[in-house]
Amino acid sequence: MPQLRVALAQVNPCVGDIAGNSSLVLERSEEAVARGAHVVAFPEMVLSGYPVEDLALRKSFAAANRAELESLAVRLRDAGCGEALVIVGHLDRDDEGVRNAASLLHGGEVVDTYFKHHLPNYGVFDEARYFAPGYDLPIVRFHGLDIGVVICEDIWQNGGPIAALGKVGVDAVVCVNGSPYQRAKDHERTQLVVRRAAEAGAPMAYVNMVGAQDELVFDGDSMIATNHGELLSRAPRFTEHLLVRDLELTAGGHTSTDVSPEPVDQGTPLHFRPRALPAFHVDRITLRPDPLPAYEPSESEGVAEPLSEEAEVWWALVTGLRDYLRKNGFKSVAFGFSGGIDSSVCAALSADAIGPAGLYGVSLPSHYSSEHSRSDAAELAERIGCHFEVHAIEDMVRVFVDQLGLSGLAEENVQARCRGITLMALSNQHGHLVLAPGNKTELAVGYSTIYGDAVGGFAPIKDVPKTLVWRLARWRNAEAEKRGETPPIPESSITKAPSAELRPGQVDTDSLPPYELLDEVLDGYVEGDKGYEDLIGEGFDAELVERVLRMVDRAEYKRRQYPPGTKITLKAFGRDRRLPVTNRWREARPA
Amino acid sequence: MPQLRVALAQVNPCVGDIAGNSSLVLERSEEAVARGAHVVAFPEMVLSGYPVEDLALRKSFAAANRAELESLAVRLRDAGCGEALVIVGHLDRDDEGVRNAASLLHGGEVVDTYFKHHLPNYGVFDEARYFAPGYDLPIVRFHGLDIGVVICEDIWQNGGPIAALGKVGVDAVVCVNGSPYQRAKDHERTQLVVRRAAEAGAPMAYVNMVGAQDELVFDGDSMIATNHGELLSRAPRFTEHLLVRDLELTAGGHTSTDVSPEPVDQGTPLHFRPRALPAFHVDRITLRPDPLPAYEPSESEGVAEPLSEEAEVWWALVTGLRDYLRKNGFKSVAFGFSGGIDSSVCAALSADAIGPAGLYGVSLPSHYSSEHSRSDAAELAERIGCHFEVHAIEDMVRVFVDQLGLSGLAEENVQARCRGITLMALSNQHGHLVLAPGNKTELAVGYSTIYGDAVGGFAPIKDVPKTLVWRLARWRNAEAEKRGETPPIPESSITKAPSAELRPGQVDTDSLPPYELLDEVLDGYVEGDKGYEDLIGEGFDAELVERVLRMVDRAEYKRRQYPPGTKITLKAFGRDRRLPVTNRWREARPA
Repeated sequence: MPQLRVALAQVNPCVGDIAGNSSLVLERSEEAVARGAHVVAFPEMVLSGYPVEDLALRKSFAAANRAELESLAVRLRDAGCGEALVIVGHLDRDDEGVRNAASLLHGGEVVDTYFKHHLPNYGVFDEARYFAPGYDLPIVRFHGLDIGVVICEDIWQNGGPIAALGKVGVDAVVCVNGSPYQRAKDHERTQLVVRRAAEAGAPMAYVNMVGAQDELVFDGDSMIATNHGELLSRAPRFTEHLLVRDLELTAGGHTSTDVSPEPVDQGTPLHFRPRALPAFHVDRITLRPDPLPAYEPSESEGVAEPLSEEAEVWWALVTGLRDYLRKNGFKSVAFGFSGGIDSSVCAALSADAIGPAGLYGVSLPSHYSSEHSRSDAAELAERIGCHFEVHAIEDMVRVFVDQLGLSGLAEENVQARCRGITLMALSNQHGHLVLAPGNKTELAVGYSTIYGDAVGGFAPIKDVPKTLVWRLARWRNAEAEKRGETPPIPESSITKAPSAELRPGQVDTDSLPPYELLDEVLDGYVEGDKGYEDLIGEGFDAELVERVLRMVDRAEYKRRQYPPGTKITLKAFGRDRRLPVTNRWREARPA
Repeated sequence: MPQLRVALAQVNPCVGDIAGNSSLVLERSEEAVARGAHVVAFPEMVLSGYPVEDLALRKSFAAANRAELESLAVRLRDAGCGEALVIVGHLDRDDEGVRNAASLLHGGEVVDTYFKHHLPNYGVFDEARYFAPGYDLPIVRFHGLDIGVVICEDIWQNGGPIAALGKVGVDAVVCVNGSPYQRAKDHERTQLVVRRAAEAGAPMAYVNMVGAQDELVFDGDSMIATNHGELLSRAPRFTEHLLVRDLELTAGGHTSTDVSPEPVDQGTPLHFRPRALPAFHVDRITLRPDPLPAYEPSESEGVAEPLSEEAEVWWALVTGLRDYLRKNGFKSVAFGFSGGIDSSVCAALSADAIGPAGLYGVSLPSHYSSEHSRSDAAELAERIGCHFEVHAIEDMVRVFVDQLGLSGLAEENVQARCRGITLMALSNQHGHLVLAPGNKTELAVGYSTIYGDAVGGFAPIKDVPKTLVWRLARWRNAEAEKRGETPPIPESSITKAPSAELRPGQVDTDSLPPYELLDEVLDGYVEGDKGYEDLIGEGFDAELVERVLRMVDRAEYKRRQYPPGTKITLKAFGRDRRLPVTNRWREARPA
């Protein structure tokens, strides 16, 4: 059977850094070719980075992408990679609009370009805003083998290019991806790749981006599956990696280009679907007609161990924070160490992301702060080995309260806001990025002070429900113990009752239901899009459900002003998940 | 010729207030029927309000809309409107997804429903995220006349339902709209309605929403055009209105339902367009086969006077602010009166929106504040007749500066932030909504302090370039003089050099190019999507262009944390107009 050595370059590009991303492609291609690879595949839009948002609208940006692509083809040839087939995702633009494209580079030239057919426009995706869909299907014969290329969402929709490739015949499919991490979705992705390989009637090489861009984390998870249900190789996640694998393929000598119009899957809700697509245009080109002479396969990389549920989330959060800092040029972070669980987990995440030397913990006690808050904060800093300073806010608060005659909520909020100003002043003076340590539960119900604890440039655990924050803390401590290291988080920060400490004796449950119950209701309402009646039907107390739903609906304004943060679900609060601010709909209003 | 009295109900619904919006339909229908109308048309999605954003995803919300629609049909009949044909925009949901729909109510029943064909997904629109497109085209015979219904974007795309109606034949078209105000676009809209009426071969009755929802303002501008290029009637803008007009129509006795698939316009960029649509299904139903007996037409409403460029923007801003306050239940606003032009214009807008009694001006002097700032602020309050208080921030600032050892930018920002805290404390204590008085120019280049002057719940002039702020101030003062009233804005606030007054002798031009020049470059880069080379080609200085473009690209993070504000262009900064925060693309980097 004809052989082919395929390399999947799981790399970490940065949006807008066209030159840097191009160098990444060049370097990894050289490495792959040095390891004998014949085909080297890079992720979706690796040249531009992904997602580019409104950069897609700039003609100058599209022109720069095209120019870099063509120069990259030449540089690859000059660097001795001209014999390889290098598949590179990029942004393109033609008379029909902007394109999410993947080009085949060979012999110093761009030999063909595929335009993504299916443009996702739900959840974190906005591709129908920016891109015009493709209808063409290039298939290249390389070393006697017919290779098809598709992009990401093209395999998540039934019908479409994979079905077409299956009909006309290919010997291998390369799928290039910018597929964001989503909690507990890894298994689904693997099953999908295996299923699509079977549908295409050919093995599929799936290469995904790794690293974070703004709120999205790409987990890598590049893999190769046969068309007989077997997963051959799989790269480790959350790390750059070059997966190299020899494939034994069948040269089908396919010639058909006849694809009848394909009815589009009607099962996908809320997605723009025409009822029928025009016929694809299949474009077969031949680069290398003859199979390679037989060669000795290299040692095969197998299937990376799956991660536990907590490990997966933890490394997604570390990746999200690390890349937000690195790609924006920050070397240090600062935030309030309150002694509570949220800031403790953010501290452990920060230390894992950039090391304890880049972490500045700031204790900001008021006259309502408990002794254990102060001592837990200090102990956290000591365990982690980070910087720690104490700035009492009593004098600041007193001027505002006295001069403006504040009481009640106004007085509580001034405390949180004096902390916010202090952190921002330290940021201005010393260049740290301030982190907002709020969790998803708080954000959902609006349990935070705008311009107070919501101050910051990034919110690492914005998409983590409170109960999961506790689980992560226990998991991270246990990991440390396994490795014989000091567990980073003080035990009492995990076990004590959460409190904002803005008035004497205050605890969170004064204002909120118990977190275990609250997170269950939120999971149904926010993650599950369930309504009041659905939740009552599941046995939740009607008064509780009504209370929680009202809090969620009313907190939209606060959520909008919250800093960006790593998404670990497709239902993360943010640009793509929002209610109108002016909104009188009350889910829970009795009929 | 058969007659028909048509009423266009230019109303102001509120998102989510299904019951309230339904009552609006009932009341205006009763009024229209009392005035003898046979057809009463309401705007796009009048029952749900528009845009509903993620409310569209809730099954419970769709069910509530459907239930209200059916009950409304009954209530209309019971209120004596059963003989009329009432056309109501609403949200719907079926097996294919969520729909942007318009239903025909008659005799206590929902007799037919149209689903919007073209779903705009650019600029402020996200409809492809939420809705499934329709392909059906109901035409109802009412009093012997064949009436077609379309929705908003359906007339902005070439081909599609209007072309189809023209082919199969109709006697009148009703177009229901949620068409947001856009600066200087009024003429284009009118021309479009006239052109589409000609294409349909029948008069078009165009009814638009009025009022504001979050950042969007709907200007009304409902109108009726003949198919011979004549504009018959046009409602005044920015105000609720019932436009009633007798039409003399030709009963064509059309029976064709044969529409061949229509090629879709390829001229619209960046919009998901399948290359061919399936055939429409034309559904002709007969409600009332016979023409009305001849009747005496009522006096005809003519064409409302067009507004000047400044008046149009002013009333859009007043509407945006007024409805944001009213629909969110705020009765008063507070913000810093600095003596500068931005806060002065915001004060005049606030007074026009809610009256001077709801306006709390707060002077927040520091030791860098000039004497003229203090006196101009006081004079502004006196001219407007609003509340005015003075809270010196010196003591607050001193505690932060001394305790934290601040200098330079950190010290400047602390001043702006102590002002922000003070305003928020007054808001918490007294229930005012804080306004952020920043303009579009500042926002574009990042010339503001996050958590400082950017504090607030709403930013009235967020989409107004600085040079237009000045023009509006002069216009508003001139209007007052015309009416014999005191011009609201002190002359010296208009003429003096702008300054943030955060250090001695500071003026804006220390940090920024002159505003006239800056606004010209921003207009090219932001509104025109022009690149560095384009702008150089237009004769701008290369160093200036590079400087401005870098400021814009770097200010994305600040823009995201800015409060919402009324949009007057489709290129307003906000959710639908944004760059990635982590973005290394530099437009102006020398090649």
